Amino acid sequence: MSVAVAVHEKAITLAKLALRMTAKAGSGHPSSALSLAHLVAHLMYRQMKFDPADPWNPEADRLVLSEGHAVPIIYAAWADLGGVVRGAGGERKLEIDDIDGLRTRDSVLDGHPNPAEGFPFFDAATGSLGQGLSVAAGLGLAAKRDGTGRRIYCLIGDGESREGQIWEAVDFIADHQLINVCAIFNCNGQGQAAAISYQQSADRIASKLEAFGYNVAIINGHDPLEISRALTEFDESHQRPVAIVAKTVKGWGVKTLLKGNWHGKPLSEDQLTDAEMSLDEHYAAAIEGLTKGGKLDGPAAPAKPKIVDLPDVEGAQWPAFAEAIEGGGLGEALKKGKLATRRAYGAALKVAGDLFPQVVALDGDVSNSTFSNIFAKYHANRFFECKIAEQNMVSVAVGLSAAGRIPFVNSFAKFIARAYDQIEMASISRANIKLVGSHAGISLAADGPSQMSLLDVAYFRAFTTVPGDDREHPLCWVFHPADAVAAYHCTRLMTQLRGMCYMRTHRPDVPLIYEPDTVFEPGGFHVLHAGDDLALVTAGYMVHIVKEAAELLAEQQINVTIVDAYSLPLNAERLVETLQRSGGKALVVEDNYGGLGGAVAEIAAAAGNLRVVTLGCRRIPKSTLTSADELDYCGVGPTQIVEHVRSLL
Amino acid sequence: MSVAVAVHEKAITLAKLALRMTAKAGSGHPSSALSLAHLVAHLMYRQMKFDPADPWNPEADRLVLSEGHAVPIIYAAWADLGGVVRGAGGERKLEIDDIDGLRTRDSVLDGHPNPAEGFPFFDAATGSLGQGLSVAAGLGLAAKRDGTGRRIYCLIGDGESREGQIWEAVDFIADHQLINVCAIFNCNGQGQAAAISYQQSADRIASKLEAFGYNVAIINGHDPLEISRALTEFDESHQRPVAIVAKTVKGWGVKTLLKGNWHGKPLSEDQLTDAEMSLDEHYAAAIEGLTKGGKLDGPAAPAKPKIVDLPDVEGAQWPAFAEAIEGGGLGEALKKGKLATRRAYGAALKVAGDLFPQVVALDGDVSNSTFSNIFAKYHANRFFECKIAEQNMVSVAVGLSAAGRIPFVNSFAKFIARAYDQIEMASISRANIKLVGSHAGISLAADGPSQMSLLDVAYFRAFTTVPGDDREHPLCWVFHPADAVAAYHCTRLMTQLRGMCYMRTHRPDVPLIYEPDTVFEPGGFHVLHAGDDLALVTAGYMVHIVKEAAELLAEQQINVTIVDAYSLPLNAERLVETLQRSGGKALVVEDNYGGLGGAVAEIAAAAGNLRVVTLGCRRIPKSTLTSADELDYCGVGPTQIVEHVRSLL
Repeated sequence: MSVAVAVHEKAITLAKLALRMTAKAGSGHPSSALSLAHLVAHLMYRQMKFDPADPWNPEADRLVLSEGHAVPIIYAAWADLGGVVRGAGGERKLEIDDIDGLRTRDSVLDGHPNPAEGFPFFDAATGSLGQGLSVAAGLGLAAKRDGTGRRIYCLIGDGESREGQIWEAVDFIADHQLINVCAIFNCNGQGQAAAISYQQSADRIASKLEAFGYNVAIINGHDPLEISRALTEFDESHQRPVAIVAKTVKGWGVKTLLKGNWHGKPLSEDQLTDAEMSLDEHYAAAIEGLTKGGKLDGPAAPAKPKIVDLPDVEGAQWPAFAEAIEGGGLGEALKKGKLATRRAYGAALKVAGDLFPQVVALDGDVSNSTFSNIFAKYHANRFFECKIAEQNMVSVAVGLSAAGRIPFVNSFAKFIARAYDQIEMASISRANIKLVGSHAGISLAADGPSQMSLLDVAYFRAFTTVPGDDREHPLCWVFHPADAVAAYHCTRLMTQLRGMCYMRTHRPDVPLIYEPDTVFEPGGFHVLHAGDDLALVTAGYMVHIVKEAAELLAEQQINVTIVDAYSLPLNAERLVETLQRSGGKALVVEDNYGGLGGAVAEIAAAAGNLRVVTLGCRRIPKSTLTSADELDYCGVGPTQIVEHVRSLL
Repeated sequence: MSVAVAVHEKAITLAKLALRMTAKAGSGHPSSALSLAHLVAHLMYRQMKFDPADPWNPEADRLVLSEGHAVPIIYAAWADLGGVVRGAGGERKLEIDDIDGLRTRDSVLDGHPNPAEGFPFFDAATGSLGQGLSVAAGLGLAAKRDGTGRRIYCLIGDGESREGQIWEAVDFIADHQLINVCAIFNCNGQGQAAAISYQQSADRIASKLEAFGYNVAIINGHDPLEISRALTEFDESHQRPVAIVAKTVKGWGVKTLLKGNWHGKPLSEDQLTDAEMSLDEHYAAAIEGLTKGGKLDGPAAPAKPKIVDLPDVEGAQWPAFAEAIEGGGLGEALKKGKLATRRAYGAALKVAGDLFPQVVALDGDVSNSTFSNIFAKYHANRFFECKIAEQNMVSVAVGLSAAGRIPFVNSFAKFIARAYDQIEMASISRANIKLVGSHAGISLAADGPSQMSLLDVAYFRAFTTVPGDDREHPLCWVFHPADAVAAYHCTRLMTQLRGMCYMRTHRPDVPLIYEPDTVFEPGGFHVLHAGDDLALVTAGYMVHIVKEAAELLAEQQINVTIVDAYSLPLNAERLVETLQRSGGKALVVEDNYGGLGGAVAEIAAAAGNLRVVTLGCRRIPKSTLTSADELDYCGVGPTQIVEHVRSLL
């Protein structure tokens, strides 16, 4: 007895609900949703293992909707299944009538997938295209390491497969042999503004996937038998990753939606009856000749979750600084009295790995520069080489985070900029990821501006202006250590804090400033010297330069405060007090295009009666042989700082 | 008579120079450079048409070194050819001894390719990997439109071909049938931290390229005959794009460099003699059995440049606002009294296209949302559909800009964030590109945060803090129009200004605020109402909300100034005066994660005696049905603004 008719029937049910909810909301993408109706019906009612009452079960299969705008079809299924959601009023079953709240302020049914708004069937926010397969890869990687039977299905639009990140993910899945991830390309042939390019046709996508090393099934995505066959192929493949290329119809079953350009446009409520009739007609035609009577079993039950007892990241005792550095193989380097922040970070990351099995690290082929290779040496099975593909790396980390890991993402700070959109999506997911960018600022010198990060402080500082869901933490904490001790403690803080963190490290070896047991805290800063003429506020590598400037100023009987603002958002009250005690004036010094300056100025300007001037890079850097030369070239060397201070006094 | 021996000989000469300059600089990537020695010798001495004395000739072939770190091999050839550079002292021939200045402050030989530092053989800065083929595509597209015989060669590392952007570019080249672009993959098998993945092996890259629709030649990249054969295939292909996959050896010819990991490490000067001997031995072995006596002709002369007389963008007379809107087909919409800034921008862009043949537009499959489709309708041959691949789109624009075009790059502001690293590289190239992001901020409402741009103001504002090369303009101008009139005039300004510009438009239709002939200027702001209690500073959509708030405040006898800060960097002096006349207090209101707040606060704090508080989004947005509801949800609605003002007074 065939279940094809039952799949068709369910697809029609879901399609009608998708039309209804988008019409009611007056926005959304029903035509994209309908192209997925049969695939989703088959996946969620026949193929996947999950319990609608417990979407958090780590053994349950997962679905990542990379083409997030098609989400109404998933909401329809979840409502039909009575799946659990977690809204303002706590956990409850989603009811069919809840779909009428789509996109409204109090609904868990956001315009695009977002688990953080209470829809736990998803693991990550999607909607900015091309990111879902990387998230699926992160989930698949975690499942493989955990030894669960969990499988991950990812629905990808044909148009969005133009995004290079999709192909970064395809490579990553091949590298890591993630045969538990099933990439399904929904080839409905239509983009937003026009038809898709031939380069994104089903045939071409299939050829590409084969060339990338995949087993590929090309199917009619509205034919339950073909869907079933392809998924069986996935089930049975134990060697190569499998991808399914499904030819579908945008607006399947609804005559109105088949005409002209209906991307992202809902029907009016008046059009619903006609559309439902059209769907019924399509249904009748589709099931003609098929054996009736088959039944959909609904999702199969997943295995019972194993209880894994992980250490609490807030509780553990971290070793003393010297021990950590020694343990990372940097004892000899430290004895010479200088150590780059990136190196100390590498040793600290290794300690985090020693203490917490949930800590993992990713790198983009620069682990011998970021020093994540120290972690890799001791925790090889938790180090994931992502090669030169930063977008995929960040989204994989989001998937790993959803699977309970604490991922540290490593690259040059400049190359992390490659993934700023993915990072913003991670913030929407409330992903617990830690981003660490090395070689930041201009101290890198000889390699020139293409390798320097100059906008990262401004970018990440913007996240720190927004309170997170708990209203106490910001959306992202920023850390910017000046020496090895600070780098060690900031790494500890990043591990302990729940939520996104960004740390900025530098290339040059620098002397130690801090005693090993100095206390560091999120949003904290240290006053390295108190003076009553003016405060020099800076962070990271520039703390060393500002110290030089302060010595030059002292020779001129100018006595300045030095503030090492190692974390953002800054504690405003303490900062205002500090500036007031320093003549009410401050010069903020940065080795990048201003970010810290705005942070200090906003605090000062809100308080009033304080004067703050920023001295950041005065031009685009170029190669110079030494850091000192670069600072001078960009106008932020010690003597230039001195000049600015004198002009302020 | 074979020239193979001559190519080998030249490769050895260039290799020795590359070793010498990196040893002298004490940094650089000689092993990568050597893997390209034969390819570069063949390209620059046999294949390409250019005049070393006139690299600016628009008929000359171009070379894009996507793997920018290998640049010493190009510098070697350019010095050997006596090519022209443009340093501080003006134009001059590069001499062999100039290579000893590699990476020094006064040298045109930057650590990575950068035409802006005086090396005009290149068109764009490279070094952040994976971007070069897109630049080459932009150059190729311009050449195709110009009908020149110019051809573009692009050298790409195997490791960097992991970057998804490479495959976006491969698709773009196929879509636009750019058979004048030759992608050459340098497969030396080694990344930085380790060997490359099998996914980036020569065989796999070749299979991928074939699946993407290319003719592919796999060759030994150190065999002049095979190089020659492959390039002949490129010369003769008039249907499909051709790619060359060259198997090479990292550190070719130098025994020391073949051992262990020598990525990014120069030899010491002591090691040079041994290395040169090793190269000589390799040379002897390589030419064994080859016929001697062939000669390299050097680069062939390009055609004489055609004189194209383009209108001066600063000089032209723009039509009046109403005429422009009418011309864009928006006359009816305007009559209703409301027009979205994104729509008015579309009409303005069409006018720019009418006036200036050098204006071109690119879009990422959302031209019916960004309204670049108005331009496309009237200037179809200057509209380039890039599909959903924003990274490639921005780098293509950089290539088009290098070829004299003024490219307007269009997408949702959120998706432009996808290309922030490419945009930073564009700033290093001093590319004359105009970025226009629509649907910015939270007024988008129903679609939710995955489609909103929340960090763009902070990001682009950082560029505005840095003076450009002329010391008068910033690295980037930011425009943020509040109504259709402002959008029109800001588009005009962007067209007229030389250098990078960013404009932020919004989804909702909004009433007109400005008289049609209001004067707008870069860095300008308008005072819409003068009050002496406090100034409300804002921009874009929020100007309308702030006006509502001001009306509510007026009912409470609170009289506020309204500042529409439509361009950054703000004119500091005028702003300080304005704030002083407004009770010395300001509330900055933003529909994003703070950016304008920092800009105003920095100006105020530098002046002292002013109080400034920022009110930006107080949480991550979610879907709501209306803009008003979203503003309220995020804490920036009119009544919330009123509350903040009252608490400040």
